[in-house]
Amino acid sequence: MNDLRVFLLTKDKLMKPFLTLALLCSFCISVAAQNNLSGAWILTEQFPTETHTHRMTLEFNGDKLTGQSGVDKIEGTFINGAITMNWLSPNGQVSSTFTGKVEGETLKGEGQYLGIKFQWSARRPATKPAAPRTHTFIPTEFHRTFSYAIPPAMRIFPGDTVKTTSIDAGGNDENSVRRSMGGNPLTGPFFIEGALPGDTLVIKLNRIRTNRDWAMSGQSVVGNALAPGYLMNLKRAQNFSSRWKIDATKGIAFLENPTDPLKSFTVPLQPMLGCVGVAPPGRDVVRTGDSGVFGGNMDYNQLREGTTVYLPVFQDGALLFMGDGHAAQGDGELTGDALETSMEFEFTVDVIPEKSIGGPRAENNDYVMAIGIGGSLDQALQRATTDMARWLENDYKLNSTEAAMVMGFAVKYDVADLVGTQVSIVAKIPKTVLAQLKR
Amino acid sequence: MNDLRVFLLTKDKLMKPFLTLALLCSFCISVAAQNNLSGAWILTEQFPTETHTHRMTLEFNGDKLTGQSGVDKIEGTFINGAITMNWLSPNGQVSSTFTGKVEGETLKGEGQYLGIKFQWSARRPATKPAAPRTHTFIPTEFHRTFSYAIPPAMRIFPGDTVKTTSIDAGGNDENSVRRSMGGNPLTGPFFIEGALPGDTLVIKLNRIRTNRDWAMSGQSVVGNALAPGYLMNLKRAQNFSSRWKIDATKGIAFLENPTDPLKSFTVPLQPMLGCVGVAPPGRDVVRTGDSGVFGGNMDYNQLREGTTVYLPVFQDGALLFMGDGHAAQGDGELTGDALETSMEFEFTVDVIPEKSIGGPRAENNDYVMAIGIGGSLDQALQRATTDMARWLENDYKLNSTEAAMVMGFAVKYDVADLVGTQVSIVAKIPKTVLAQLKR
Amino acid sequence: MNDLRVFLLTKDKLMKPFLTLALLCSFCISVAAQNNLSGAWILTEQFPTETHTHRMTLEFNGDKLTGQSGVDKIEGTFINGAITMNWLSPNGQVSSTFTGKVEGETLKGEGQYLGIKFQWSARRPATKPAAPRTHTFIPTEFHRTFSYAIPPAMRIFPGDTVKTTSIDAGGNDENSVRRSMGGNPLTGPFFIEGALPGDTLVIKLNRIRTNRDWAMSGQSVVGNALAPGYLMNLKRAQNFSSRWKIDATKGIAFLENPTDPLKSFTVPLQPMLGCVGVAPPGRDVVRTGDSGVFGGNMDYNQLREGTTVYLPVFQDGALLFMGDGHAAQGDGELTGDALETSMEFEFTVDVIPEKSIGGPRAENNDYVMAIGIGGSLDQALQRATTDMARWLENDYKLNSTEAAMVMGFAVKYDVADLVGTQVSIVAKIPKTVLAQLKR
Amino acid sequence: MNDLRVFLLTKDKLMKPFLTLALLCSFCISVAAQNNLSGAWILTEQFPTETHTHRMTLEFNGDKLTGQSGVDKIEGTFINGAITMNWLSPNGQVSSTFTGKVEGETLKGEGQYLGIKFQWSARRPATKPAAPRTHTFIPTEFHRTFSYAIPPAMRIFPGDTVKTTSIDAGGNDENSVRRSMGGNPLTGPFFIEGALPGDTLVIKLNRIRTNRDWAMSGQSVVGNALAPGYLMNLKRAQNFSSRWKIDATKGIAFLENPTDPLKSFTVPLQPMLGCVGVAPPGRDVVRTGDSGVFGGNMDYNQLREGTTVYLPVFQDGALLFMGDGHAAQGDGELTGDALETSMEFEFTVDVIPEKSIGGPRAENNDYVMAIGIGGSLDQALQRATTDMARWLENDYKLNSTEAAMVMGFAVKYDVADLVGTQVSIVAKIPKTVLAQLKR
Repeated sequence: MNDLRVFLLTKDKLMKPFLTLALLCSFCISVAAQNNLSGAWILTEQFPTETHTHRMTLEFNGDKLTGQSGVDKIEGTFINGAITMNWLSPNGQVSSTFTGKVEGETLKGEGQYLGIKFQWSARRPATKPAAPRTHTFIPTEFHRTFSYAIPPAMRIFPGDTVKTTSIDAGGNDENSVRRSMGGNPLTGPFFIEGALPGDTLVIKLNRIRTNRDWAMSGQSVVGNALAPGYLMNLKRAQNFSSRWKIDATKGIAFLENPTDPLKSFTVPLQPMLGCVGVAPPGRDVVRTGDSGVFGGNMDYNQLREGTTVYLPVFQDGALLFMGDGHAAQGDGELTGDALETSMEFEFTVDVIPEKSIGGPRAENNDYVMAIGIGGSLDQALQRATTDMARWLENDYKLNSTEAAMVMGFAVKYDVADLVGTQVSIVAKIPKTVLAQLKR
Repeated sequence: MNDLRVFLLTKDKLMKPFLTLALLCSFCISVAAQNNLSGAWILTEQFPTETHTHRMTLEFNGDKLTGQSGVDKIEGTFINGAITMNWLSPNGQVSSTFTGKVEGETLKGEGQYLGIKFQWSARRPATKPAAPRTHTFIPTEFHRTFSYAIPPAMRIFPGDTVKTTSIDAGGNDENSVRRSMGGNPLTGPFFIEGALPGDTLVIKLNRIRTNRDWAMSGQSVVGNALAPGYLMNLKRAQNFSSRWKIDATKGIAFLENPTDPLKSFTVPLQPMLGCVGVAPPGRDVVRTGDSGVFGGNMDYNQLREGTTVYLPVFQDGALLFMGDGHAAQGDGELTGDALETSMEFEFTVDVIPEKSIGGPRAENNDYVMAIGIGGSLDQALQRATTDMARWLENDYKLNSTEAAMVMGFAVKYDVADLVGTQVSIVAKIPKTVLAQLKR
Repeated sequence: MNDLRVFLLTKDKLMKPFLTLALLCSFCISVAAQNNLSGAWILTEQFPTETHTHRMTLEFNGDKLTGQSGVDKIEGTFINGAITMNWLSPNGQVSSTFTGKVEGETLKGEGQYLGIKFQWSARRPATKPAAPRTHTFIPTEFHRTFSYAIPPAMRIFPGDTVKTTSIDAGGNDENSVRRSMGGNPLTGPFFIEGALPGDTLVIKLNRIRTNRDWAMSGQSVVGNALAPGYLMNLKRAQNFSSRWKIDATKGIAFLENPTDPLKSFTVPLQPMLGCVGVAPPGRDVVRTGDSGVFGGNMDYNQLREGTTVYLPVFQDGALLFMGDGHAAQGDGELTGDALETSMEFEFTVDVIPEKSIGGPRAENNDYVMAIGIGGSLDQALQRATTDMARWLENDYKLNSTEAAMVMGFAVKYDVADLVGTQVSIVAKIPKTVLAQLKR
Repeated sequence: MNDLRVFLLTKDKLMKPFLTLALLCSFCISVAAQNNLSGAWILTEQFPTETHTHRMTLEFNGDKLTGQSGVDKIEGTFINGAITMNWLSPNGQVSSTFTGKVEGETLKGEGQYLGIKFQWSARRPATKPAAPRTHTFIPTEFHRTFSYAIPPAMRIFPGDTVKTTSIDAGGNDENSVRRSMGGNPLTGPFFIEGALPGDTLVIKLNRIRTNRDWAMSGQSVVGNALAPGYLMNLKRAQNFSSRWKIDATKGIAFLENPTDPLKSFTVPLQPMLGCVGVAPPGRDVVRTGDSGVFGGNMDYNQLREGTTVYLPVFQDGALLFMGDGHAAQGDGELTGDALETSMEFEFTVDVIPEKSIGGPRAENNDYVMAIGIGGSLDQALQRATTDMARWLENDYKLNSTEAAMVMGFAVKYDVADLVGTQVSIVAKIPKTVLAQLKR
């Protein structure tokens, strides 16, 4: 390649007379391109069984191309419209190689990573509007999986606000019309421009309100929350109706046909979303009844109006799904179905670029919360505690002993969710405590 | 009985002439005894490897003896001072047989239960004072096991109040004098007159206050609360001092020699007792670092001033042990040792006869709490949920479906204790919710 | 619809003159179709977020259409080429309604299920060849998810045998050529004709052999298999190479560069497949490092030559994926990576129609095995034990007490897999024991 | 020492004239004692709530006393018959101080340890007989707790063999006579001379045989081994009898009144002891239905004839309890009660001084086995794996990576016990594998 470059340079003077024509020649394209190709790009590597997306910055300078993506350095060439790039790890070794070209607004080509070939393309980051916008989104389709493969229902920018609605877990909307099969059909996904794997997605729940006058609940405590001896002798009531009336004015719900002992039993409305999740890592597709590192069906009753949720981003645009509204719910969603109902809600998104968190987090006026999700409560608690320790260590610059001191006296745990293949426990710390820490 | 006894004593001299006769006159003794012996008794059956204690009521009528103990009927004879008794189960079958005699204030003899021989004796219940009393107890010995075998430090009656103190988990008292080896040396045991196996012991924590100006804490989060990946890379701070200053006036604690980030870190005092327990069932003796159905080292930060604790009684007199004061503690006693310090505290006991609960419970102004203790958090939560369901079913007459309805929307869980061979989770329900239930 | 039928019948005589033309008219098509439309069909209902596939048998008789699908009865009409069907549950209620028409070899149209619209089509079951066939399949693509969405690599029939190969967990083939990214890239999926949701897929592992001379293993015990105190003080050896030499002739593997104490350490080859799985239920897509009710990365060292695996079918054609060969592995795949290597293997499939099993099972000469998969070992064991109980109850007609008797003395547990979000325990019973049971 | 004592005694009369002098001659006593007192001692420190027992070696040299106990050095004086000792930790700090005197064959006095006072005494180790002995022990009392407080039933020496019997878990002996209340009444405890805390007790199970013709079993699988959904719908058979006939000649057991499907169901006899345990640490007393670091009711079906059990010693003399014979048992003692029956058995004990193991271990011709006991299967497995790693590291001098290599390919897990507050999993490694390791 060096040889070719030399040749072009030595011929340079000869080409002057043709300068007007130069706009058509590849060299001239190259010159023109240099100015507008340098800058920020979003690179997508399409492997046979996986897609990787990265931020990268490229600098075109004559034949030379340099750049950066995360900790990796980029070195390459741009000759006659042909791009070559090598990615170098911090230790100086080449991790990926690329060849390609400019095609309209995009770059594209082929590459290789540790012996694996991929197709790649790069696009310019979308231009953020001058001011945040507020969108109204009326959902027409509902999704029952957290999936990278579902086309975005709407594309929004960090800072934007969305007003929308969700149908209930059984698929019924605010007009009691069946819109979907049951199992937490969700609203979305929302593609957040500029949210890339390795970032943190911020979802501020501005408003969550019930929008119809009834709800359905489960009728029995889920089996895994009860002792074997109790289960073996359990007798269920016959003909019990678990349909609830919602009185939004009074802010309460009550059974439509209560048995005698529950005639005065009312539940204060505390509307929340059982599901707030992004598309899971890799090519995993997870039903909306489950949860994981991507959030999902966390069923945490603190995910309500005024709370901000943080989720790790695993896919280009994050792909945010929301729904499974509960008019109210005790800890753990003990009855499997809480007060399942439709909702209207409003949220504002933001992105913290290149901040990677180990799992879902949340924050309200009073607490920061690390949501641990695992196969048992013991594992969920370990993850919650560990993520809180890391939060304190990374954001508050405590060492592990100092973090232990703070947690030992300030941690409160919530049992968030007992339903599904994954359960969750939340470790939370009062903000008044964090305010005491010297940052 | 008092009257008769007084009569007999005052008549003592007069009776001398009849004494020789009287010894032969078993009939007369019997007649005299009949009045004397009928009524309430506390029966102790001493098996080779176990002791059983029961309430029983006996009725002496000529040669005939009848009575009741729990659901068992008693039929027997009282002839020539010789007692025989058969205990009949509700199904009419003889479960135990007794022979014996009167000996002073007690009855005693031998018996057989399902082929196993035992020694038995029966005593009159102690007479409750006219009015509750308040005792001041200054402990001189401290105990590191929950055990039936430790002689009572003080005998008190239901309704009585005790003012006393505890030393810290390491054995140091309010004057910083080492009084015991470490590992939660406790104050007590208090023998509660009339508390018998199958009863519930009620301990109202009237006052719990720190009584010295320092505390010690652990320095790291306990291993079972952290994810393996974190543990494998854990680096502990060197030369960190976890000695704390207690400022009772300001109601805070702070590190005596804080590192820079913790210079402003203060912990509000919320004095609590880590250990409230009775002697365990059977002949089990459990170190005071552990917990179980008998309560014990539950390390639940809601066991503080204003809270009432309920414990099942397993031994005659219950044998109540208390101590392991923490000036403050987050959920789960994450650092293994909380703010360990000495305490002064006051409590009032009561007994609910023949009410059997499945494990420790508590109550404060806001909540009723079922404390589930098990080998894993999952098991602890199952036990807490189940005990709360039973609480609602038994005391509030809900069926299991109604109980599920209430719990589904009102249960809050606390992770009480993560330390020791047993961990604990508490299921609690607001009293405002219970007030809505028709009883 | 009834009206139309009446009209057509009354017009019948008038139509006679047009009989020759009748071959072109829809009525006549209908007549002709009646004969060849009756019989077995495979129905696919395409919901917006889900696909259901059922066996159904249709009987066309004049205008009338009757049929059966599982427990549901089908009633409908076939008039002028237009199909209508109602599905009736055993209780007589209509669950689904269909309209449609014949289109070539298929039927298709629209339907509604509990208010949800779907597209449907029905195809004839593929005709099974006269004799089972043996296929040689040379994989060119490898898949890192268990997914309904991956096009079949090969379509085979029950009874067919496949000879094929797999690459190692890191993506390297028998020639040490990198063919895929790592993380258990699998061979397949194989579409088994006639395997439908609710069936059981039978995979007989006829032969599993290593086909190259090296393997790689992990270097440390996975964190969740070690006690916290050990993890906190764990020191890893530096510069340890966990590359192994495979000597297939001698039937052993050994470290290529062993440290001194391991110089004589050899591992007998017991080639097995870590992954045997079908496409998961619904739209779930699961990475090939994980396992579940669909089998998957079970890492059970008894899934080797001579073992038959049973998996529930969740998707049309089952879609069988296989790979992740281990030259040898102790219980639990303790080091995360066992002796990872490429394999050549041969298997024969079969289908047990309409036999639904609760999870993966296996069988060899000595044992029947129920594989329990869950979020903790306790949950996995509960599932294994329960599935074995159901196996005995369903196939051996024992009641639960008789099943308990057999299991109490004959169950052996294997800890199959400790790696991933799901762990697995196997309950197995010797066939000699089952031979004693009167069926 | 015996010789010297004889000499002194035979010279007794001759010494009389010097007696008055001798009493004043502390120097002479000291001189005489010096020879006499130097050597090995067993020291017992009696704290108010704990007893510590240590080996120590003393050297009397003039006024000076030196010695060693474990890693601690002893420095002291012996003046006028008065002993003083300071114990120095390896870092040179004084940990304990002692004062005392000689009293007959013992030393005794008072001491202080970290501010805590104790009484101490020291005795000479019992003299081991020239050759191992075989004892026949006919038990008359049976114990239902593992306890330091139960007086030894027999004192034996390392190397000795005991032939004895056990009654069944319900308390019935070989003649079907009820001898105790149920709940695993055990034979023992055997005091092993010279076994001290920190040692390992070795129990070789030479012979375990049934000695009557019937057994009883449980009738249902324990609740914690079944999935909630199964438990909720469980129907138990009525009038099922779980009494078994034992035919020792044929080596089988079978139900006395089998239901039809179980008419041919026989269980091969594999007699084992459910309980092999020593007195637990500290003052803990544990019912014989439970297990822990001290062994106990491990219910591991490999604890049978030919197996050697290793237990950590926590109390002076170890105090070994044995019993709870099972004629046969599947993994986990799934039915809560296995084939409970009386046994005759023979065992040989040994002691490995100052070798401390973290929990129970076992060994037979084929395997070494680390028995992990914990509150959940996950915790039990962690402990088993960890103890096996430590075993390989300590006894086979592997580093943690080498241990991982061996375990990754050679570990087999057994699920030993699912019953009680503690469950157990065993990690075992074939001895053929260990034979390959260079020691």
